[in-house]
Amino acid sequence: MVTVALQTNYTRLQKRLSDLATIGQLSCGGVRRTAYSPEDLAARQMVITAMEQVAMDITIDAAGNIIGRYPGVQDLPALATGSHIDTVPAGGRYDGALGVLAGIEVVATLHEAGQRLKHPIEVIVFTDEEGEMIGSKAMAGNAHDTDGEFYRRLDGTPIQTCLQRIGGDWDALTTAQRTAQDIAAYLELHVEQGGVLETKECQVGVVQGIVSLQRYRVTISGRPNHAGTTPMDMRQDALYAASLLVAAVHDVAVDMPGDQVATVGYLNVTPNAANIVPGLVDLTIDLRDLSLETLEVMVQSLQQRVQAIAAATGTQIQLERQHAVNPTLASPRIQDTIASVCDSLGLSHYSMPSRAIHDAQEIGRFTQMGMIFVPSQAGVSHAEDEYTSPEQCGQGADVLLHTLLQLDELT
Amino acid sequence: MVTVALQTNYTRLQKRLSDLATIGQLSCGGVRRTAYSPEDLAARQMVITAMEQVAMDITIDAAGNIIGRYPGVQDLPALATGSHIDTVPAGGRYDGALGVLAGIEVVATLHEAGQRLKHPIEVIVFTDEEGEMIGSKAMAGNAHDTDGEFYRRLDGTPIQTCLQRIGGDWDALTTAQRTAQDIAAYLELHVEQGGVLETKECQVGVVQGIVSLQRYRVTISGRPNHAGTTPMDMRQDALYAASLLVAAVHDVAVDMPGDQVATVGYLNVTPNAANIVPGLVDLTIDLRDLSLETLEVMVQSLQQRVQAIAAATGTQIQLERQHAVNPTLASPRIQDTIASVCDSLGLSHYSMPSRAIHDAQEIGRFTQMGMIFVPSQAGVSHAEDEYTSPEQCGQGADVLLHTLLQLDELT
Repeated sequence: MVTVALQTNYTRLQKRLSDLATIGQLSCGGVRRTAYSPEDLAARQMVITAMEQVAMDITIDAAGNIIGRYPGVQDLPALATGSHIDTVPAGGRYDGALGVLAGIEVVATLHEAGQRLKHPIEVIVFTDEEGEMIGSKAMAGNAHDTDGEFYRRLDGTPIQTCLQRIGGDWDALTTAQRTAQDIAAYLELHVEQGGVLETKECQVGVVQGIVSLQRYRVTISGRPNHAGTTPMDMRQDALYAASLLVAAVHDVAVDMPGDQVATVGYLNVTPNAANIVPGLVDLTIDLRDLSLETLEVMVQSLQQRVQAIAAATGTQIQLERQHAVNPTLASPRIQDTIASVCDSLGLSHYSMPSRAIHDAQEIGRFTQMGMIFVPSQAGVSHAEDEYTSPEQCGQGADVLLHTLLQLDELT
Repeated sequence: MVTVALQTNYTRLQKRLSDLATIGQLSCGGVRRTAYSPEDLAARQMVITAMEQVAMDITIDAAGNIIGRYPGVQDLPALATGSHIDTVPAGGRYDGALGVLAGIEVVATLHEAGQRLKHPIEVIVFTDEEGEMIGSKAMAGNAHDTDGEFYRRLDGTPIQTCLQRIGGDWDALTTAQRTAQDIAAYLELHVEQGGVLETKECQVGVVQGIVSLQRYRVTISGRPNHAGTTPMDMRQDALYAASLLVAAVHDVAVDMPGDQVATVGYLNVTPNAANIVPGLVDLTIDLRDLSLETLEVMVQSLQQRVQAIAAATGTQIQLERQHAVNPTLASPRIQDTIASVCDSLGLSHYSMPSRAIHDAQEIGRFTQMGMIFVPSQAGVSHAEDEYTSPEQCGQGADVLLHTLLQLDELT
């Protein structure tokens, strides 16, 4: 097959990653390019220019998503790829950017070879992935919010203003919706953001799906009291109760077979003084797994433990579900295709869930979806020292290219 | 005995407590009267006026302590009593104020009866008890600080300025020092600030001593990581480690016989986001007991547990002692005297340590010391709803009066 011989240009991809990382560059190698910021706008322009250089037609939908289209030779729905270029406030240079720039590199490689697919290829830059994901949600028809308050920025800027800045249009948001009739499949390349591939010594992760996430807010009410004068048996210590709960959250994940995860990442103590028995603790519980049944078992187990802890510590514990995101499974056919492409290219691969959220989660709700992971050094992400080597980035782009070529034949 | 017939005037004491509570009054019944504030200055003036009305001679020493002296009939060292009138930022109306105003009420009662003791009585208002206790420390010769930086206020005001405001003199601080040659004994009436007397259904607490306090600062270093993408067995979760330590601190206090207390009152998580495995936790450990040996056993046990927790969680845990205050034991003779006075007055009493810090802790370092506790409703203190009934306040003042009368004979 002629197509197997095609290879993306690792140097060119790396150059684009470096150029993009100059926009919002931080002192320790990271990037600050929050959605709708001047840096985001500059980066969007850089990406649009790069798309135009490889003969892509640009449109910006009402959600501000940039859609670069490389026409196909037949009148078929698109094969789409992409990711995002916004970052967390002190993020890395690969999260999101790799998926967008590798998509452009795939098109550049085809364009250079004078090759078109049967299907058009779309490379999509989704709006505000690190925030409320309005881009991919609008495309899936899930950006429901009558007055825009949900999407208002933390700094108070209305979403209407934000979308206007990037060429979107809040009032026409529903026009951004797509269907399986015009996107036949969606494929996203992303850095793993965890340390599984490095530990397994595998070059590529074949994503089985994006896990369900359930987030709970917990309030533990005890009684603030003098840390000296209150005997141990007369205390209602909210932090002692919280410590038992944090340990229970850990145990509920590790005591079951499977690779579900459970985290208390946020915990706030009131009044938080060395000489006062804590009267109030707020904390969050974050549970993730591909299986909704597993999550249900974890939640039930936690609820039982919460009751026991409240009784033992004389505290009141309220558990409130903040949000729950349903899992999005990757298409088995796309997973098989990615795996066979890896085999063809001599790349080791490992099947794994994505426990981070990606735009693919929303796009996978209306069309078949697949994701390709490449390793994150030491599992680090959302941090300035996020790193994936030029070779690993290029290997990911090659897998993306050849999977798209295979899907072009199969779809 | 004529003296046993003497009784303090409960109504007058209550009136003085109410009047003082109008200075710095808060909306929910509490008081904000932090040291050196305009409210503190106004309250000091009110106390000085009250002292003058009952024939006391006023001096203000270099540490700003107000010393009201009711002369004796012989040339003897003083019997001293007192407490403080500064409060925490949202404190109650009894903490400190009761000890000062009951001292004045004792003198008022004697003055009204035309009675003088052999010893002079001093009623002392100590400077800044709720802060760095410069008043009682200077009197004990323990206010060592070459440049005054230790005593600088949190708002930046130099201690020199603060002392000037209240009639003190930083440069002459050493002149505030007293000895057992001029204070023969010190007796302090205070609200319990805990719930032991209420639980034991006792009217008066006979304080055995003021506990030793050891305060540790703990830093737990793990690795911040994505709460989704980091498998449980690859985490170095600083908050999970902290939760095991908080539980260990609780257990180390309750697993030993005795009534030692151990508290984690302050705990701070970094970065403290729901979707990030915590990388860093700072917390404090506060240990208190009358016995230094018991504290030593607790610390050793904690150090062993810290090592085990660090090993089990892949974190690094640093324990640093911030400060240690030696216990101050109450004079057994004064304890016996307080108990026998309670018996004479028909008041039930209970021997207990003070686990809160008081000015008596410093004064007891150079002369014999005793403390009388009266109940705190529901054990509440350092809060606006701190409450001790008029009858309980008056009973405390009666015990103070008759103990001073007994000591006058015995000393």
